[in-house]
Order: sequence, then C-alpha cells, then structure tokens
Amino acid sequence: MKALQLISPGKISIVDVETPVPVAGQVLVKLQAASLNKRDQFIREGKYPNLKFPSVLGSDGAGVVESVGPDVDTSWKGREVIINPNQGWGNNPDVQDRSYAILGMPDNGTLAEYVVVNADRLAEKPAHLSAEQAAALPLGALTAYRACFRHGRIKPNENVLISGFGGGVAQFAFQFAMVAGANVYVTSGSADKRKMAISLGASGAFDYKEKDWYKNPWQTKGGFDVVIDSAGGEQINHFLKIMRPAGRIVFYGATNGLPASLDLYRMFWNQLTLQGSTMGNDEEFMDMVRFVTEHKIEPVIDSVRPFDEVLSALDDMSANRKVGKLILKF
Amino acid sequence: MKALQLISPGKISIVDVETPVPVAGQVLVKLQAASLNKRDQFIREGKYPNLKFPSVLGSDGAGVVESVGPDVDTSWKGREVIINPNQGWGNNPDVQDRSYAILGMPDNGTLAEYVVVNADRLAEKPAHLSAEQAAALPLGALTAYRACFRHGRIKPNENVLISGFGGGVAQFAFQFAMVAGANVYVTSGSADKRKMAISLGASGAFDYKEKDWYKNPWQTKGGFDVVIDSAGGEQINHFLKIMRPAGRIVFYGATNGLPASLDLYRMFWNQLTLQGSTMGNDEEFMDMVRFVTEHKIEPVIDSVRPFDEVLSALDDMSANRKVGKLILKF
Repeated sequence: MKALQLISPGKISIVDVETPVPVAGQVLVKLQAASLNKRDQFIREGKYPNLKFPSVLGSDGAGVVESVGPDVDTSWKGREVIINPNQGWGNNPDVQDRSYAILGMPDNGTLAEYVVVNADRLAEKPAHLSAEQAAALPLGALTAYRACFRHGRIKPNENVLISGFGGGVAQFAFQFAMVAGANVYVTSGSADKRKMAISLGASGAFDYKEKDWYKNPWQTKGGFDVVIDSAGGEQINHFLKIMRPAGRIVFYGATNGLPASLDLYRMFWNQLTLQGSTMGNDEEFMDMVRFVTEHKIEPVIDSVRPFDEVLSALDDMSANRKVGKLILKF
Repeated sequence: MKALQLISPGKISIVDVETPVPVAGQVLVKLQAASLNKRDQFIREGKYPNLKFPSVLGSDGAGVVESVGPDVDTSWKGREVIINPNQGWGNNPDVQDRSYAILGMPDNGTLAEYVVVNADRLAEKPAHLSAEQAAALPLGALTAYRACFRHGRIKPNENVLISGFGGGVAQFAFQFAMVAGANVYVTSGSADKRKMAISLGASGAFDYKEKDWYKNPWQTKGGFDVVIDSAGGEQINHFLKIMRPAGRIVFYGATNGLPASLDLYRMFWNQLTLQGSTMGNDEEFMDMVRFVTEHKIEPVIDSVRPFDEVLSALDDMSANRKVGKLILKF
C-alpha cells in the first residue's frame, strides 16, 4: 500500500509498504480520506518528542472497515467509520496518562491506504457527512470540544472569543460555540478570514495585528466570558484585560511563545481562570461525534486533494493561508 | 463607643464615636472580639481603592446581638454570632458583583465596641469555639474555604501545598485541607513555622528561601495536585514545575508581584489550571461555618490582646512574624 512515511528527521516521502494485518482486538480500515494537523508538520520538521523511524504519519481518518482480527465484533466489517486518535488516555478524565500517544507517531497513522487500529477506536461516521468531511473531525474537533465544554464551560448567551480564526481547532471551536448559543467573536490577522467568520455568523471579528486591538471589543462588547486560544504569547495579558469576571481563558498551544509577566492582580480579584488543555478523553471523543451528528455540523474544509499531493498540502497548511481543514483523498 | 477609625490616608486612631442604631433589617452587635486581616493594614497605609474618611476598620467580629431593628426576627436578640463580612456579593456564585464590598470599608466595621450589620449577615457562633476563636474566622476562613474547595477541588489523598504558612488564610487552608484528607505540605521561610506545621500534621515543610527548593518536593513527594498561594511572583513558575497532571494552582493574592513569563507549554500539555480567587459567596460562608462546626476546627491564634493595643497588633501582623490570627478583645 502507499503510505506517507517519516524516513529520518526532516525527511518524509510516499513509499510502498506492506499492508498491515489486524491481530486480536484490531481492525483494518481502508481509508477513504485523511486530514492534516499541525502535529504532522511538527513531526515532519523533527519538532516532536520521541520520533520513531520509519513511521506512517497521520492522526485523522475516515474509511471502511476492511477486515477484523480475532475477538472483534464482525458486524464492524464493511461499516463506514472515523477513528479516535487517542492511544492510551487512561482512567483519569481530567488528564491523559504519561504513556498517552496520538495515532500517527509512534503507531502508524492514517496517511496511508490502510491503517490498523484497535476496534474500540472506531466510531460510526456521522450520516450527514461525506467521508472527506468526516476525516476532518478527529484530532481538531476533539481538542475543540474539550476546550469549549469541559474547560471553557460555554453557556448560551455568553461572549466567546476564538483567537486565530482559520486553524483547524479554532474552526471547530467556533462552530461548537455557535451551536451552544454563545455570542461568538473571532480574531484574525487576515481580512478574508474575518469576513468569512462574519459570513458564518460571528458577532464580530477583530484584527489582532492592530495596536491595542483588544480595547475595541472591550468597549463595544463588554468583555468575554471565554477565550479559546492556541497562540499564547503576550496576548494572554491582553485577554486578561477583556475578560468578564469569572472568565475562562482556555489555551491548547502557545505558538507565539510565552507572555512577559502575567497580571495576577486582575486574575484574583476577578476570579479568572487560565486553563491549559490538550486533546480530549475517549468519552469526549464519542460525545463530540454525537454532538456533530445531532447538530449536523459540517467541518469547514479548505480543499480536498489527491493523496499524492500530501507534501504540498502540508506546506500550504504550515503557511497558515488556509481556512479550514486540508483533506487528502485516497 | 470606642472605635478604630481611619481619619485620613495613613492615619488611624482609637476615637469615641456615637453608637450606631439599627434601622429596618439591621441588628446591633456588641462585639466580644475582632480579628485583624492584612486588608486592615493595607487600608491603614492607604493602599486600598475608594477609601472613605472617617471610617471604622475591621472585617472580622464575634459578639452578642444587642438589639434588632424593625423587620428583624427578634429571636436574634441575645444570641452569640459571627458576622459574614460580604456586602453585596450578588447573584453569581462564581464571582462578586462590581459593587461588592467588605465590611470595614466603606461601611463601618468590627474594630469597635458595636457594629451595625444586616441581619442576613449573621451566623450562629460555632458552639465549640470561644468568641475570641470565632472572631478569627470570617474573612480568612471564607477565602480559604473557597480556594480549597470551589477552586482547588481538594480531594482525599491528594497532595496539597500551602505556600507561606503563617498567614491567616494559609492557616485555614492548611486546616481545611487536612480535614479533607489530603496530604498537606507547606512552605515557609521560617524554621519555627515549618516546625509548627509539622507538629500540626503537615506531611512536609519546605524553605522557599532555599535555591531550587521546589526540586526537593518534586523528587520526594511526586508533585502536587493543588497549590494554595497568595504570594504570586516568580514562584508561580516553580509551582508549575511541581504540579501533577491536571493540577490546580489557586491564588488569592500576589504580594510578591508578578512572574517573569509563564510556562504555558507545561500548562497545556499537563492540563494545569491557574485560578484566581478571592473571598467567597454567602453560601460558602455558611458552608464554611458548618464545616468548622462539624469538624470542630479551632483557628490557630497568635495572641489575644486588649482592643487598646490594636495599633501595635497591626504592626506585628504586617511584620509577618506571627503564626495564626491576632485577636482583639473588648
């Protein structure tokens, strides 16, 4: 089968490898579509811990169960599924085990014609979604779901700010917050992306490249109950200035690095929360799939491309030019 | 009556003022004892917003209901009570209203022979406590209760670190965490205070003045689930290094200022929480009084002094030489 392998640090390539065989408890999924995450690019660039060579990349996939190993319910065979990329979250819903991993490193992932996973990693593909749309969900939607609901505790009519509109998780967080009945705002450095957010129902869109941009939403919107962020950096202090009392800043990354200092005074008097978040547990994965199904949420997709174009697709994703997920089709 | 008044910025003095008269909904409490909080000293030094002159200081008090105003249940008369110092917390249990105030600025407080408060601010004095002990509770125990349970969510067998053992709130947090069945550790710069913590049942006591002190508890204790802190400053980053996954750092002050930077990477991957906290709502006040009563908790008291010595008592409290509350007796 064809698969995208990490050959050595910095070197990935589509290669021919043997199709894996499911053992007890496993299934073989013939992938219809896979989607890209920043994680794939970090791994490509060697910016990820505990890399294994060679490895098949890819955390997100949708497909059809081709065959099942021993001790697996045979009714899975032929069903359309998406794959829960969690590997060994563990028993604590609050946090993953130290041995936790994500599909696609070190275990072989979804950027291949076939993947073997444990049968308990399968969920029915939501019926309203194509395989290409469903492949957009796993890692991004799970991360967004946990950030919005477990940690952000988003409630109807709250003011929610999604920073860096355009990224995969941010898209899902935007859609989930909208469905939850919040007033949803975004930040983006791109006029096109701000326009798109408004067309999708955002109550406002702010350009974080403007100096003191945060004073505008504060004055016009009265502050935010929840911020969902992945950039970190000095903006954390800007967010603190525009939080309503009891507000929650939830972040699942820090691509802009660390803030210089932190306004603890404002935090304790206003009872503010700064909450780190990553991924989500297995129950949240199933909750997310149900939530997407119930509310017929359709992932925002930038483009669907043939699997052969996966390298240029990774380049495009890294350049942050895209709104929505990049999908590879087999 | 005699009362400790703030006369002008920086100037406080015991003066003779008229005994107040309760109006509808209010009661007059003849104070048996009052206790000091850092807040009183901040007000004394003019380091507090919206000061009013002259004002009677004091947030904590225990006494006997001397008389009741119109529309108040007359059965309160003659009963021994402690006073809930919250003034207008509001309807949101998560955070106080913007108009929230604390007894003892701008409303006249408990460092006086009599104080007038709304009848709904009264709680029965816990029967196992003397008036002097009960006077130690209100502001400090309320702040500690919320920090430990609402925000810290302390559970049995968790590792809890109370920083700055010796302060009023820290004492209560220590006692509450012990009663909750946690393994409780403290930090203190004073050998005497560390010794005292061990004698009160602490599982360990660390000297935060030692370079890299936090590496020791990490190595020997495996990290903390909860830190209760009021100092802030660079130690926030030290705490982040010794938190277990899903750990919560709850802080109700920042006397050491702000940290240089903040390790967001560690926070999101380990799903850590940094939570600002202050005071507590009215329900938490009643819960705290019940908790203290049920578990027969006795506040740690440094000394009981005649009211005439209130100025030197404030000086002593500010010097951080004391373990436990300073009580003034009328």
